[in-house]
Formats: sequence, structure tokens, C-alpha cells
Amino acid sequence: MDVDICGPSIPTILGIASEQVHASSTGWSPIYVQDNFGVMSVGFMLPSSRDAIMWRGPKKNGLISQFLKDVDWGDLDYLLIDTPPGTSDEHLSIVQYLKESGIDGAVVITTPQEVALQDVRREIDFCRKVGIRVLGIVENMSGFVCPNCKNESQIFKPSTGGAKRLAEETGLEFLGAVPLDPRIGKSADFGVSFLDEYPDSPATTAYLDIIDRIKQLVD
Amino acid sequence: MDVDICGPSIPTILGIASEQVHASSTGWSPIYVQDNFGVMSVGFMLPSSRDAIMWRGPKKNGLISQFLKDVDWGDLDYLLIDTPPGTSDEHLSIVQYLKESGIDGAVVITTPQEVALQDVRREIDFCRKVGIRVLGIVENMSGFVCPNCKNESQIFKPSTGGAKRLAEETGLEFLGAVPLDPRIGKSADFGVSFLDEYPDSPATTAYLDIIDRIKQLVD
Repeated sequence: MDVDICGPSIPTILGIASEQVHASSTGWSPIYVQDNFGVMSVGFMLPSSRDAIMWRGPKKNGLISQFLKDVDWGDLDYLLIDTPPGTSDEHLSIVQYLKESGIDGAVVITTPQEVALQDVRREIDFCRKVGIRVLGIVENMSGFVCPNCKNESQIFKPSTGGAKRLAEETGLEFLGAVPLDPRIGKSADFGVSFLDEYPDSPATTAYLDIIDRIKQLVD
Repeated sequence: MDVDICGPSIPTILGIASEQVHASSTGWSPIYVQDNFGVMSVGFMLPSSRDAIMWRGPKKNGLISQFLKDVDWGDLDYLLIDTPPGTSDEHLSIVQYLKESGIDGAVVITTPQEVALQDVRREIDFCRKVGIRVLGIVENMSGFVCPNCKNESQIFKPSTGGAKRLAEETGLEFLGAVPLDPRIGKSADFGVSFLDEYPDSPATTAYLDIIDRIKQLVD
């Protein structure tokens, strides 16, 4: 469930950007990437991906509520919610609407530099204040190996120790680091699965380890 | 004026994160980085940079209105407004509150990959719909030169032609491309001026050219 209402990128990343949502007697049908993987995003509801979604909070909250109430999700093992950055309407609404059902936890994702960690400290504070367990912290864009000389550069320098240090500082689990691999962005642009295309890459190993660990934490 | 209410990074980037806003008889005083460069951000109003700002739209809009009405800006040559991504409350409020005074234009900044360009197409559509002139498009994080072997990598690959192609496609001006230099992020983390520290770097040349061009367009 993609609740980045003004910037829905999930349909493109998953290769289903041209799909449209259909309504049935049981509600809106998610778009299925695979038999066991359904997606809902405002991106499926727009005439064109170029159209701005000029909605203030209440309208965004209304759609998020509909995503939870009016979508025929079927029998789910997991509901994964991708939020935009921030601690505002989308985040407060999700917490409010899922209060009864409960939320297993939040996975917090950051890049290594201090300016990004600051935003993430606020997200962690948000989770604590609203009573959501933080499952752990993931570091994204974590170091870049030059394809020419194999030298590693810290493009987004962990000036203050990066996500690992933040995890220690906040008493949270460090779930892992995904290296900066240009093929990840390229796969996202073309809507193909990076994990399937590059199964032997270090980033794939990192992703799979992180997913395994999150599954352990919530199951 | 930093209107990223839930993620105010400007104070850290400008090296004034520990400052607090003072009120006087003429209103709130901006924090001055230099004699001729004053800044206002919600970051100056929080007890700690770790505190989440859990505000929905109306409260964010209220603060933005106060930033415009209650801050003693003095006699300004330029008012530069840094917005978060999106086309929601912050953006709609700025347009609404500055309707009478007019807005010279918007500078749209993107990274090269298609997933980012999609968000930027929506920002451009937003500007057109609310009648704001788009001064041009800047490409950020535009290519990385390995410090070891000098080989250039496109970390965020311009799968669909990047900002330059987007500018052609939308009939807008391409203002320039800032290369991905790890020292930019590091300077931001430590609140020092990249332009002063690395005056001879290609990124500094790019920044200065872009600034000159924007000045030409609005003066």
C-alpha cells in the first residue's frame, strides 16, 4: 500500500504503472505484480502520471482510509505500507486508522549522512510517541564500489557514524546496509526486479538478509 | 525560508542549528548566517532536533503564514523558499499566501533517474495549474567521478535522458547539472559552505553558473 499520495513511485518501480484500478462488488481490486503480491497506489487512479495531485491533508487522509476500508485485499499475510518522509497527515492517519488492528512495527530507512539521520531521529521519536515499535533501521545508499577500479567511495558520507551508530544511540536494531548500486535505480526506472536480475550482487544479499530478519521480527 | 516543517534540514546545512528564534516588537527575528542572509525555519523553534513535529496540514499552514506575516524580514532583495517534495499543503499555502505579492518563479530540482523525473513532472504540472512560472530545471547528483581512478559513473542513471531531456520535453530551460561530490553532503552535515571550502571544484562552478542564470531570469 503506497501512501505517498503526491509522489506515487511504487507503480513504476514495480513495472505496473500502466494499470488502472477496477472496482468490483467487493471493493477496489489491488493490482497484482505476482499471484501473492497485490499493490494499491493513487498512481493507478490518475489519467496521466504527469498530473499533479494537489491535495491537502484531509483529502489525502480520505484516500488512505479508503485504501484500508474499500480495497478488497483478500486474506493477507502482510500489509506493507510505504510512507513518504515526514511525520504529518499520512503518518498520523495510518496510526489512527490502524489503531484497532495494531501495527507490527516500523522499518526506518535512511542514507548515511547526518542531515538524513536527523530526519530519521524525528521518525523514531514519532514512532515512540504514537506507540509503534521500531523493528530496526536500514542504511540505504551505503557505499559505492567503482565499476572501473573497485575502489569504494562513501558518496553519502556517514559523518556521524551512519545508521549503525544511530541504532546504537537509540537502542534499536541495525537491520543492514544496502550498497549504492546504480543498477538498483535503473531497475526501478524500468520496473524490473533487481533481485531477479542481479541475484549475485552484494545489494541482493543485503536485501534478502534484511527481509529475513524483518520476517523473524514480526512472525 | 524553510517550509519543510516536518524535516527542517536548512539550519544544519547552514551551520546555525543551535540558534533559537527571538521575538522583538517588530516580530520574530530571522537567524543571520551573514549580514545579508537571514533564515527562518521551524528548526529554530524546537527544544531538540530529535523531536518529531507531528503536525497535520492546518498547523503547518498556520506556521507558514506566520513566517510570512510575523517575521521581521527587513528589506529583502530576494525571498527564497525551500519546500519539501510534493504538491500538497505547504505548496498550496505558499501560492495562496503570496498571491497578492506575486512569485517570480520556481526552480525545480531533480536527480537524473526516471522515478525522480516523474515527481518533478508533477511539480511542473502543479506550477502550471497555479500559474507559477518555472524558471528552469536543475539536475542534482549528476554523475560521480571516482577519486581513485577518475572514471565517471552515473550513480543515478538518466534512464530516460535526465533533466536535460525533461527540459526539452516540457519546453523549460535546463539551468545546469551539479555533479555528485561527496564533499557536498559532508559540508552540509558540518554546516560549512561548500562554495567557500572547495572554490575550484566542478560542483562550485556549476552552482555559481546556475545562481547567475537564476538572477538573470528574475532581475
